[in-house]
Amino acid sequence: MKAAIVGGGVIGGGWAARFLLNGWDVAVFDPDPEAERKIHHVLDNARASLPKLYDRPLPPPGTLGFAPDLATAVRDADWVQESVPERLDLKHRVHAALTAAAPAEAIIASSTSGFPPSALTDAGARVLVAHPFNPVYLLPLVELVGTGVDTAAKILTGIGMYPLTVRREIDAHIADRLLEAVWREALWLVRDGVATTAEIDDAIRMGFGLRWAQMGLFETYRIAGGEAGMRHFLAQFGPALSWPWSRLTDVPELDAALVERIAAQSVFCKD
Amino acid sequence: MKAAIVGGGVIGGGWAARFLLNGWDVAVFDPDPEAERKIHHVLDNARASLPKLYDRPLPPPGTLGFAPDLATAVRDADWVQESVPERLDLKHRVHAALTAAAPAEAIIASSTSGFPPSALTDAGARVLVAHPFNPVYLLPLVELVGTGVDTAAKILTGIGMYPLTVRREIDAHIADRLLEAVWREALWLVRDGVATTAEIDDAIRMGFGLRWAQMGLFETYRIAGGEAGMRHFLAQFGPALSWPWSRLTDVPELDAALVERIAAQSVFCKD
Repeated sequence: MKAAIVGGGVIGGGWAARFLLNGWDVAVFDPDPEAERKIHHVLDNARASLPKLYDRPLPPPGTLGFAPDLATAVRDADWVQESVPERLDLKHRVHAALTAAAPAEAIIASSTSGFPPSALTDAGARVLVAHPFNPVYLLPLVELVGTGVDTAAKILTGIGMYPLTVRREIDAHIADRLLEAVWREALWLVRDGVATTAEIDDAIRMGFGLRWAQMGLFETYRIAGGEAGMRHFLAQFGPALSWPWSRLTDVPELDAALVERIAAQSVFCKD
Repeated sequence: MKAAIVGGGVIGGGWAARFLLNGWDVAVFDPDPEAERKIHHVLDNARASLPKLYDRPLPPPGTLGFAPDLATAVRDADWVQESVPERLDLKHRVHAALTAAAPAEAIIASSTSGFPPSALTDAGARVLVAHPFNPVYLLPLVELVGTGVDTAAKILTGIGMYPLTVRREIDAHIADRLLEAVWREALWLVRDGVATTAEIDDAIRMGFGLRWAQMGLFETYRIAGGEAGMRHFLAQFGPALSWPWSRLTDVPELDAALVERIAAQSVFCKD
């Protein structure tokens, strides 16, 4: 099986690593002259971490190639994964080209975190959304939207992913709507000087982040409701919904001062 | 050392278990005739799980008692933890009584998830906020707000917790503001039929929940920014802040139909 990776940034590189280490051949196309170096960096990380998730050996890895152009990359591909920047004009151009060049039976998928399939093309090109999560080679979730998701789900399960079919086309699918909510509130907390980025990360990773890695939001709340369960929880915490517990009803302005504050607070690691 | 646990629900029971299994004596006061049975249930869970977090044995557990009244419970206590329901009139009454009855040098803390310390008392009773996360005996995070947090932090570190001092009094502290944001958006998704509660939980536990258990929000975004880091990430995803990616600017009405839908979807486990 062969995957064509169109766009070799953090997400495209992660897809390349996941396919390769699960035995697929991979062809990458990215006009960035640094793409090859960057993808090898992601691949080194994946080789060091992905095998530790399994108690069985992974299949022999496929071969990795870098194509000089888009048409060469998608030749003979079974799966085409587009991970170019989130600009609609660019997505439209790329998907017109992919539909024209890819084999008729190939699945063409977009990594878009925000756009529904119907927005990704202005000329009827075929594309479904397969939205992964960074690092793509480790996190199992992939949100699927559009036609042909059943076949896509089987293929992605085969490379160790957990497909979640989204019932309705909606901007930002499911997970990124939740992330956007947290992100906005976190930006307010930083902007208002309530917490630093490191303190917010601590509040997550030492608390509800640990719960959510196990069971998500509703299940933890059902348990929090004690013996009376979810109805009790909703009765107890429902009223707080309308209390001024957040600044969500406003969108924070990401001005230069806030960007600088966040960037300056965000240098946690030594790398 | 002795802890007085005032209010023996899910949170109070969790505090009792954490103190007990870290060697403290514990006295519980709760007028609920079922409190003793409920606390033993929490304690059984804690005994089965907490020791597995450590590669050394825990200290010998303290003794557990149930007090007939509040004054008896707090007698000789070094730490008094209030975990009664989130009603201000009740908090005011309880904290007046606790300040009157507890030893002068005892720390009096509230588990409130929403109220800042200044709101917890209308008569100058002394209280700081020590807001834990369910299950209290497992999750390390505890948010501290108010005067005397340095001493409190040392004591809580001693029972295996991770104190996070909140710089400013603010409704819902830090973590619950983030949780409230996700909760609102999740309620919209369920109400609008975009996803079930189980699908939302999958979207969390198979994706960003796994990241957040390791490193929180900002650090994962810094990494997602690739080699250019946080500034690149903000430049790339900043514009989406003002896109219609969420329904956050409205508060969903938690009417009977929505409560029933959530409760019906939330029975995941066989228990």
